[in-house]
Amino acid sequence: MSQPASDPSVPRPSRGKFRPPALGDVKVGGFFGPRIDTIATVTAKTLLDRCVEAGMLDQIDPDRPRPGVRIPFQEGNDKCTTQMFWDSDLAKSIETAAYALYWRRDPELEARVDEIIDAYGRLQAPDGYLNSWYLRVDTLPRWSNLRDCHELYDAGHLIEAAVAYFQATGKRKFIDIMMRYADHIASVFGTEPGKKRGYCGHPEIELALVRLARTTGERRFLDLARYFIDERGQSPHYYDVEAAARGDDPADYHFKTYEYSQSHVPVREQRTVVGHAVRAAYLYTAMADVATEFADESLEPALRSLWAHLTEKNLYVTGGFGPSPDNEGLTFDYDLPNDTAYQETCASVALVNWANRMLGLGPNARYTDILERTLYNGALVGLSLDGTRFFYDNPLESRGQHHRWIWHKCPCCPPNISRLVTSIGVYLYGVADDEIAVHLYCDSTADLKLAAGTVRIVETSRYPHDGHVSLRLQTVPAAPFTLSLRIPGWARSATISINGEAIDIAAVTENGYARIFRSWAVDDQVELDLPMPVETMHAAPEIGADQGRVALQRGPLVYCLEETDNGAKLNSVGLRAGGAFACEETDDLGGVVRIAADGWRDTPAEPGVLYSAAAPTRSATTLRAVPYYAWDNRAPGEMLVWIRQEGE
Amino acid sequence: MSQPASDPSVPRPSRGKFRPPALGDVKVGGFFGPRIDTIATVTAKTLLDRCVEAGMLDQIDPDRPRPGVRIPFQEGNDKCTTQMFWDSDLAKSIETAAYALYWRRDPELEARVDEIIDAYGRLQAPDGYLNSWYLRVDTLPRWSNLRDCHELYDAGHLIEAAVAYFQATGKRKFIDIMMRYADHIASVFGTEPGKKRGYCGHPEIELALVRLARTTGERRFLDLARYFIDERGQSPHYYDVEAAARGDDPADYHFKTYEYSQSHVPVREQRTVVGHAVRAAYLYTAMADVATEFADESLEPALRSLWAHLTEKNLYVTGGFGPSPDNEGLTFDYDLPNDTAYQETCASVALVNWANRMLGLGPNARYTDILERTLYNGALVGLSLDGTRFFYDNPLESRGQHHRWIWHKCPCCPPNISRLVTSIGVYLYGVADDEIAVHLYCDSTADLKLAAGTVRIVETSRYPHDGHVSLRLQTVPAAPFTLSLRIPGWARSATISINGEAIDIAAVTENGYARIFRSWAVDDQVELDLPMPVETMHAAPEIGADQGRVALQRGPLVYCLEETDNGAKLNSVGLRAGGAFACEETDDLGGVVRIAADGWRDTPAEPGVLYSAAAPTRSATTLRAVPYYAWDNRAPGEMLVWIRQEGE
Repeated sequence: MSQPASDPSVPRPSRGKFRPPALGDVKVGGFFGPRIDTIATVTAKTLLDRCVEAGMLDQIDPDRPRPGVRIPFQEGNDKCTTQMFWDSDLAKSIETAAYALYWRRDPELEARVDEIIDAYGRLQAPDGYLNSWYLRVDTLPRWSNLRDCHELYDAGHLIEAAVAYFQATGKRKFIDIMMRYADHIASVFGTEPGKKRGYCGHPEIELALVRLARTTGERRFLDLARYFIDERGQSPHYYDVEAAARGDDPADYHFKTYEYSQSHVPVREQRTVVGHAVRAAYLYTAMADVATEFADESLEPALRSLWAHLTEKNLYVTGGFGPSPDNEGLTFDYDLPNDTAYQETCASVALVNWANRMLGLGPNARYTDILERTLYNGALVGLSLDGTRFFYDNPLESRGQHHRWIWHKCPCCPPNISRLVTSIGVYLYGVADDEIAVHLYCDSTADLKLAAGTVRIVETSRYPHDGHVSLRLQTVPAAPFTLSLRIPGWARSATISINGEAIDIAAVTENGYARIFRSWAVDDQVELDLPMPVETMHAAPEIGADQGRVALQRGPLVYCLEETDNGAKLNSVGLRAGGAFACEETDDLGGVVRIAADGWRDTPAEPGVLYSAAAPTRSATTLRAVPYYAWDNRAPGEMLVWIRQEGE
Repeated sequence: MSQPASDPSVPRPSRGKFRPPALGDVKVGGFFGPRIDTIATVTAKTLLDRCVEAGMLDQIDPDRPRPGVRIPFQEGNDKCTTQMFWDSDLAKSIETAAYALYWRRDPELEARVDEIIDAYGRLQAPDGYLNSWYLRVDTLPRWSNLRDCHELYDAGHLIEAAVAYFQATGKRKFIDIMMRYADHIASVFGTEPGKKRGYCGHPEIELALVRLARTTGERRFLDLARYFIDERGQSPHYYDVEAAARGDDPADYHFKTYEYSQSHVPVREQRTVVGHAVRAAYLYTAMADVATEFADESLEPALRSLWAHLTEKNLYVTGGFGPSPDNEGLTFDYDLPNDTAYQETCASVALVNWANRMLGLGPNARYTDILERTLYNGALVGLSLDGTRFFYDNPLESRGQHHRWIWHKCPCCPPNISRLVTSIGVYLYGVADDEIAVHLYCDSTADLKLAAGTVRIVETSRYPHDGHVSLRLQTVPAAPFTLSLRIPGWARSATISINGEAIDIAAVTENGYARIFRSWAVDDQVELDLPMPVETMHAAPEIGADQGRVALQRGPLVYCLEETDNGAKLNSVGLRAGGAFACEETDDLGGVVRIAADGWRDTPAEPGVLYSAAAPTRSATTLRAVPYYAWDNRAPGEMLVWIRQEGE
């Protein structure tokens, strides 16, 4: 007799703290495997090449001539230059390389990174300070302009890179350098007398210090992270004090409001997402980390409200956010234009991380559904299929002028999306002492460590192109544990069977996860079926530009029309309401499911006339849509996510 | 027996040069009368008050302390300030006051203008030079930066003001000042050895010099206008030469391209409208003037191509143009976004003038139809009904944040729309030796001077709210002449009768004008009927944002929905295709015809959800539309021109 799938009479254990698996514990194949392989073999080197071409090594290596300022000052902000945050771009490139080394050992790539680390070692000041801009290019005093000048942000990304490189290679040099720098930072900032009560205009150091603490086990880095979180936005405002100390007028601030850096009020008082999108999500990520690490419930009202404000009023259907190029961020509720959508790739990467950290207190599809939407659409679109070109801003409609960059004057996005994809394994699972949560589905083999022992899960799936997921438990401990399978919000008729026996999903689902507690046996086979019909998504009426239009979605993937499949003038075609969809497997675009849809095309009654009292004529046609993440990988042309829909 | 309406056996005379009537010869009532009255009694004084508040009199009056720079430098352009073109704003305010004095003598207003003119008289340098910025505020050498610094532009507006004031009052002081200045300018610029081969970055002086020549009969001012037209864009480029002379790098130019000022190539080689919209239309106005005055056919290919490019690919349905705030001008073909439309009021005023000047070689509805569209929509919207508030930029969709200004840091639009409306009489007619063209219809009395004598036309009409027009010829000369009545492009079933007898319009229409040549008798009565059904206008497929939407138009008026009539979320309502329209007379908004339309309203299936797979439900409703020019005169709220239209 088989054991009941999940026995409600057996009380499931209470949930503890969930942590991600180590990257080396999850071998990813399926959808992400080829993407990681491309980054490991192409993009990781490309990123380093471009950093070198931009002169970054000249900047950090104290044995080379000082490079001076090579890139013109940013328009309208004569205090900051594009090189000021180069350490961070190099750091994210190193982090990408570290994850690439998990995928495939590559002595040449490793040697290139070691050379950079050695240069940082030579550059580091005797007191531990380490910032190539301040040490090598500018003559401004250290820590004199936290509001604008990214010093602590640079430090944060270097710390993340050092942690990743240590985990990938076991080499301590970089992490030792960064621990010395972190200790130096702790000697400068804090509430103790004589210390500066500052915090960075661009959050990042906070989440990085949490990562450093988790890796090293050193509590002092957690305390420093919490200091930066707690101090942010307090009165008197540090950026006012700091500006006055420089002899500047605090009111003479390019971005006018401290909302730009989410320092307008203390973080626990924040309820709406404002300002620069990437800064916002980096800050909230760290707030979630601190809430988890210190079991600090006082941060939760802010985190919950910020999440609701973002996801209920300010998120694109692609999971990206921040519509405006002016502040690279938020404007006002429901301001979600399509053709001018900024929706920076980095903001999507940051939102994936914020959502991921919100899962620290337990699986909740409220966060994972957004994580998945953002990952597969707003984030993944940032990297070309061949791994050589990048999107910085991501409109949802293009009239044909928007294409990927080889590089960008602010090269933050290329290494950011690259480090996310190469480390995707850690996002798949959450592991507590006696529970495994499967957050995302992807063909993979994972060794996950419960208190009672390791579970090896071999997942077979073509997800997200197909909704069938097989999980085989190849290794299990003797003690029972909970396997929690996320049932995506878009999946309206999911089924689960264990060893061929269906289970009652509704009876075991909590917060969008089917929690199956039982004693598992070797080679237990769990089958999850997530039917993926094509859905037509309608936007809230407050989003004016999307009315009368739908976005096509299948599973977690948002689709778009491209000119190469549908001809030009994509606003002259539309979907027949109630029309049929066919899903076509294709090898194109790395292998995607293309949607063929009943549609129509309008032909103007008076061609060449700008405005005519005569209505266009309509004829039937078939429209073909491809996943949004894959657009602009073929012939350049128009693109459209929100498609007109009319008529039965 | 009555004479045939128009006897084709009698050859109509060839058309000569058409000139506008003098302003004093046309007494305007009807639609424009109350608007002129408001400007004459309210706006003219308001404009002067605001100029004084801004410190303009302090700037021009040499007997007051030098004011220095009062307004911060413009962001991103540290060579220009907002005061640099103040002479022009004051000049247009004087021009408005001059036209107001035609409407109603007002000794107090006249005394205020005389005071300003006296100050300019005291300010003028011994050599005739006259620019308050250069003489009183800045220390830059005169004529050192024509590209950016508006000196000749200021001179042009002062000349226009002086002409208008001379015509209105007969006083010569101002025009004498400006003739001296014009002669000084002629001594500085030209192709003769020792002269600068410059021209202004902002065209205006050219058309002003033509006006000065026409008023004074002095050919030398025409020659100077032609010099500026001919020299523009020649190689070596004057702005390169001038920048080098200043010690500047010519490449260090804020606007990057000389397309911004339409000086990228010589004017005869220009075929597409580019750059700053107001500059473009001011230049083309002067090109048309020079073509007319010199019978210079070499300018016509450029003028015809520019007109086609603008009106066939780059014009809003409201007749405005220039979508972008970045260059206050053109971007790329069919770039006509609605919610971010810049469509500056001044550009519409300028286009009215360009179209008007294109009529110099004869009536042609190709130009007059656009003139009318722009006048009643894109231009007139710039002035509130009470004459105290102004639109600078004019979106075609507002989410509720766009409202009229009391004043603007660049106060060019308020006096520009005011001078247009107060001088509207001269736009109604074109007069040749033996032909009167009626370009625009408006209740009015005009005394129009043909070679054979004066014609007095008493026009009775509620146009544009009603399409019935009665013309009574109260005075006529003995010789036959042609009365040409424009048949607007939107009028598909116009009828004309003379003394009760219908005429065959098709048989006598040339270039959109019904040309009726006959011997006219006193009290001949011409009745023109222009039926005004509500039309649903469809945009060309290249304008993506307008697809699936229509703009309501009745006669020359484009309509819009306002929140105060239709509730919020105007993109959730729409028109029923094929639905009925009712036209409701109302005293509201100064007396307009409101359109009531069969419509529907969508209600979201899942309120509060940002994206839903469930389609909204639809219910019938009546939508109410008001003329676009009258929006934002009641409760503030959303506004929409392009309205969704679906379903039979």
